[in-house]
Amino acid sequence: MTFLEMLQGAQQRNGSMLCVGLDPEPTRFPLGMTSNTARIYEFCARIVDATGDLACAFKPQIAYFAAHRAEDQLEQLMRHLRANYPHVPVILDAKRGDIGSTAEQYAREAFERYGADAVTLSPFMGFDSVQPYLKYPEKGAFLLCRTSNPGGDDLQNQRLASVEGQPLLYEHVARLAQGSWNLNGQLGLVVGATYPNEIERVRDLAPTLPLLIPGVGAQGGDAQATVRAGWRAKGPIVVNSSRSILYASSGIDFAEAARAEALRTQQLLRASLPVMSDLP
Amino acid sequence: MTFLEMLQGAQQRNGSMLCVGLDPEPTRFPLGMTSNTARIYEFCARIVDATGDLACAFKPQIAYFAAHRAEDQLEQLMRHLRANYPHVPVILDAKRGDIGSTAEQYAREAFERYGADAVTLSPFMGFDSVQPYLKYPEKGAFLLCRTSNPGGDDLQNQRLASVEGQPLLYEHVARLAQGSWNLNGQLGLVVGATYPNEIERVRDLAPTLPLLIPGVGAQGGDAQATVRAGWRAKGPIVVNSSRSILYASSGIDFAEAARAEALRTQQLLRASLPVMSDLP
Repeated sequence: MTFLEMLQGAQQRNGSMLCVGLDPEPTRFPLGMTSNTARIYEFCARIVDATGDLACAFKPQIAYFAAHRAEDQLEQLMRHLRANYPHVPVILDAKRGDIGSTAEQYAREAFERYGADAVTLSPFMGFDSVQPYLKYPEKGAFLLCRTSNPGGDDLQNQRLASVEGQPLLYEHVARLAQGSWNLNGQLGLVVGATYPNEIERVRDLAPTLPLLIPGVGAQGGDAQATVRAGWRAKGPIVVNSSRSILYASSGIDFAEAARAEALRTQQLLRASLPVMSDLP
Repeated sequence: MTFLEMLQGAQQRNGSMLCVGLDPEPTRFPLGMTSNTARIYEFCARIVDATGDLACAFKPQIAYFAAHRAEDQLEQLMRHLRANYPHVPVILDAKRGDIGSTAEQYAREAFERYGADAVTLSPFMGFDSVQPYLKYPEKGAFLLCRTSNPGGDDLQNQRLASVEGQPLLYEHVARLAQGSWNLNGQLGLVVGATYPNEIERVRDLAPTLPLLIPGVGAQGGDAQATVRAGWRAKGPIVVNSSRSILYASSGIDFAEAARAEALRTQQLLRASLPVMSDLP
């Protein structure tokens, strides 16, 4: 089964385009766990258990584990996900980008050590920095394309004189990912929810790629605009929400509050689908 | 002391522009250690001890540790470096690139957990992905600019219609790093040794930034051309060599062979300096 098939299966099964981002910040953990870095796994596992039937994917952000020497807790979390939610793909958000031999090591880290189903990658170093990940045919890779931060403009929005049609840099990345770079259909793109026009533009250039769209929720992206701009019958979207779910409550009811927020977001995304269409 | 001062101090003290890259591949370890991932620290420490008086910097590549669950051995290596070579800066090669809150976690990983003096970063997500690293005033950050791999062309060599003077993307990155992004003088640039003309171009655009130049040695860059293109009295270069030093011999004499190769490279780089000039 390819990553894309796994993703579409999870979307159908859970009726969801929602990806739950796992960015554990111990200082924001609820009462009784606050600032306890030994409880990163436990916090994440409780969130996963509260939302596992509402999500089409989980996305742990590796920096939040590495900063606290908690790689072992990330491994434990991956085992928990595999054992209990084998149908829900896990996207390891690592945004690696390096050349041949080093990229091979990063691919091994993501796919063999952690058993992730897909990763996020930076395209800045070009195709040979992406290629080592494509050697795992059942795995996916989302390339950064148009990111949701203000600085995303600095390079991604520059217009290229040297490419036919003078696309913006992010448009060029979208074309490469849909075209010559996508050897085995394993690629997807990361596009921020804060720019619906740009999601639509990316979708036009990459009609069948899965789009990973962070920025709904705490970052302020509009769910309805996001779905309308990005979703197509043959072009799935994976809409990530992290902080607004993880930290919906700082009380002992944090898991219930996370579920309520995840359900609200899942429903909001579903309700934004065109009439008469359905997932995937 | 700033990172730049530390680097220049080490260059003068050891008469060296050589950075020893630590990319431990257990399958290439010498006889008796081959494929033993428990001996990553030991292998690296022996290389460090054999070259500590010949290098102006060490550059551990984190992927080679992470792929083998060896973060603890990287920590041990960093302690060894701090204790025995406190004057030689350590550049953690991680090529991270993410936004605000996540970048803060990565900065914490590099500077607080591992105690690195500088990191490598991707500029693709723009200034706000770099900014969190600049909050550590005594630390440095090398931005990917023009990388030495063939795919480096794919994006970095595109010409920008939307920026005055229509620079190539990597030229634009060099200007930003020398200019508006370089709030506290902490930035440097990564430029591959395989393209001396482009090193010279980057040096023209960024006259005072330290340039980290990988690709001499195993990757085939020419040491003399590299120094002539990049070195300036007020613009230091840090020329990295990894595999040709680490794997100079696969016998029990690997550390001696590493020293001989490091000495050869250090001397070759020094001999390429303009007559009558000296480090730094």
